[in-house]
Amino acid sequence: MSIAILGYGVVGSGAYEVLTNAGYHVARVLDIKPCPALGDVLTDNMDDIINDKEITVVAEAIGGHTVSFDLVSRALKAGKHVVSSNKHLICSHYKELHALAKENGVTIRFTSSAGGGIPWLYNLKRGIRCDRIYKIMGIMNGTTNFILDAMIRESRDFADVLKEAQALGYAEADPAADIDGLDVARKTAISSSIAFDTVVAEEDVLTFSLRNIKKSDIDYISAKCGKTVRYLGYGTRNENGISVFVEPTLLSADALEANVRTNNNMISLFGEYVGRLSFYGQGAGKYPTGNAMAQDIIDILKGDTALSYAGAPVSVCNGGMKRTYYIRTKSKLEFDFFDTVETIGNTHYIFTKETSVAKVHEAAKALLAEDSDSFFAGMEND
Amino acid sequence: MSIAILGYGVVGSGAYEVLTNAGYHVARVLDIKPCPALGDVLTDNMDDIINDKEITVVAEAIGGHTVSFDLVSRALKAGKHVVSSNKHLICSHYKELHALAKENGVTIRFTSSAGGGIPWLYNLKRGIRCDRIYKIMGIMNGTTNFILDAMIRESRDFADVLKEAQALGYAEADPAADIDGLDVARKTAISSSIAFDTVVAEEDVLTFSLRNIKKSDIDYISAKCGKTVRYLGYGTRNENGISVFVEPTLLSADALEANVRTNNNMISLFGEYVGRLSFYGQGAGKYPTGNAMAQDIIDILKGDTALSYAGAPVSVCNGGMKRTYYIRTKSKLEFDFFDTVETIGNTHYIFTKETSVAKVHEAAKALLAEDSDSFFAGMEND
Repeated sequence: MSIAILGYGVVGSGAYEVLTNAGYHVARVLDIKPCPALGDVLTDNMDDIINDKEITVVAEAIGGHTVSFDLVSRALKAGKHVVSSNKHLICSHYKELHALAKENGVTIRFTSSAGGGIPWLYNLKRGIRCDRIYKIMGIMNGTTNFILDAMIRESRDFADVLKEAQALGYAEADPAADIDGLDVARKTAISSSIAFDTVVAEEDVLTFSLRNIKKSDIDYISAKCGKTVRYLGYGTRNENGISVFVEPTLLSADALEANVRTNNNMISLFGEYVGRLSFYGQGAGKYPTGNAMAQDIIDILKGDTALSYAGAPVSVCNGGMKRTYYIRTKSKLEFDFFDTVETIGNTHYIFTKETSVAKVHEAAKALLAEDSDSFFAGMEND
Repeated sequence: MSIAILGYGVVGSGAYEVLTNAGYHVARVLDIKPCPALGDVLTDNMDDIINDKEITVVAEAIGGHTVSFDLVSRALKAGKHVVSSNKHLICSHYKELHALAKENGVTIRFTSSAGGGIPWLYNLKRGIRCDRIYKIMGIMNGTTNFILDAMIRESRDFADVLKEAQALGYAEADPAADIDGLDVARKTAISSSIAFDTVVAEEDVLTFSLRNIKKSDIDYISAKCGKTVRYLGYGTRNENGISVFVEPTLLSADALEANVRTNNNMISLFGEYVGRLSFYGQGAGKYPTGNAMAQDIIDILKGDTALSYAGAPVSVCNGGMKRTYYIRTKSKLEFDFFDTVETIGNTHYIFTKETSVAKVHEAAKALLAEDSDSFFAGMEND
């Protein structure tokens, strides 16, 4: 039994080091870049991996969902177990990949695709075996937490902290996927798919961007209701299905999430038996994420190859979940769910009544069309 | 393959309900109390379980370490896997039970013996497979956290909150095992045994009681260094071995542990690859702990029966770890490691230099002999 790793970037090389230092045999690494240190282990030809009967686990850390989907599909069809750290791939092909794995009598694991180094998805999957999860919630993106934490503690502006995060390598040159919520939406979709044993697509996740938050929002929220802000992904059961959304969220200053510093993550499940279980750690990085990937591989090598997805008849219904919101906008549009409106200069600071997530996200489109700088945040009643 | 549960108390009945509701077959429950609801499942004769070849997993939730050790040993010798929630048993017979399991080709699991509903020990055991853990630390006792949290947030006295905790069922009529640290010492010993792949006895764990803390300590600490207090168990590697100790600990107000409310637990591992991973949840209770026990059972039923204890050549050396301390005492004894001493009335408030854990615990004996009301707390440099 040996291992192949696809992609020798940050995560792939981390997994390689963790595994080899723990005495596991990585037979092949696929990459198109030269990498002399790997010697004969390196290949740019997937056939070398497919045709090697000794290789029973293929670990994908390429990213994207085209080449990676092709290679992972080939591995599954060849009867090899697959481990992936790639949220884009897993989120966009959840059902197909599980079906392919089932057809070929193998498993697919992707703990490191949400939560990075945190064994979040692994424990979530373990949790649903004898408990009914009714909510998942958490900080799943280190970049935006780094930005919020610095804005709040150092009283700085968004753009200023974003620049620092980019200089430190925490944020990409194009930070859109982080700050507009696509990264969290994908992780929320994958987490909700496991928690509720269904398939949630990234398009199902209603998402408010963090991009428009200002120091003045943080100050206003603190003054009006003593709360602070974190950027959270949610999946919750309701009467008609599940709600899945990503929103800047107002929290009490002593909430655990409010005390998650810098670029760390904290993700929680809420089970009927177990209550709230929270998992905290590094949501990214070469060794933490490489370690999480290595753990999935070791599970498989030790014989844990069950595939857990059954496909419960649960569907997304974002109208089924209600919460209150903070809105800051220059638009003069008014909605029946507004509760209090304070106008300072030409800016309206609004707290809403309890309103369905779907309704507020729909209204937000109209408000953003009039004022693209509008900011929206949900509220935790903690 | 079916299951037997020994002891139908709080945890045993919780595990029974979780398992049966999830479709697992509990063939037998052993208890000496009548329990008509269980019908023929109930027995008071261990032979009924030992002789039933269908029963492959025996789950012990009796408590103590005499009857439970006898019954668990019989189960292991009969080739049955064992799951236990009993920290007293596991801590006092760690090596023997692992040896018996090994001899008989079975496993022993005890996730719920430390951390209650939190899959702490499970993840710790999973973590050491490909990472080197250099520290574990955490809030492992709900009673003392409930007391500290209420003292701090509601500015109340120890005795007053202890009474409330007893009324709520969070504290025993005799609270000594909780407030003097024996409960945390056992959980710290078990956690350290796994983290460092060795055997730590409860006697190895140097323990400062929480019993003597006063509202005035909390106020003094807050005024002098802006810190707050939690009751923590520690296991850390040092040059000569490991240090294991339980101490009231001064923490920054924005430390995650400082924001663990009421009777919850939070326990962390620190790995060279993964960094800090923290696990938060209910540290006790019928359903959370029953759920954790059920999870261990399900792992075994699914074929995960590896026994991980190898016995690394690591021994306890509490002289190898240094930290600074807060001491409040009426004793006039002076030690060379005292840094600042403030005397108010006949009470001395001392902050020490960095000093070895062993040295301060030794000195504490002399101080307590002169003033049995003295209070000691270590400090986190967070």
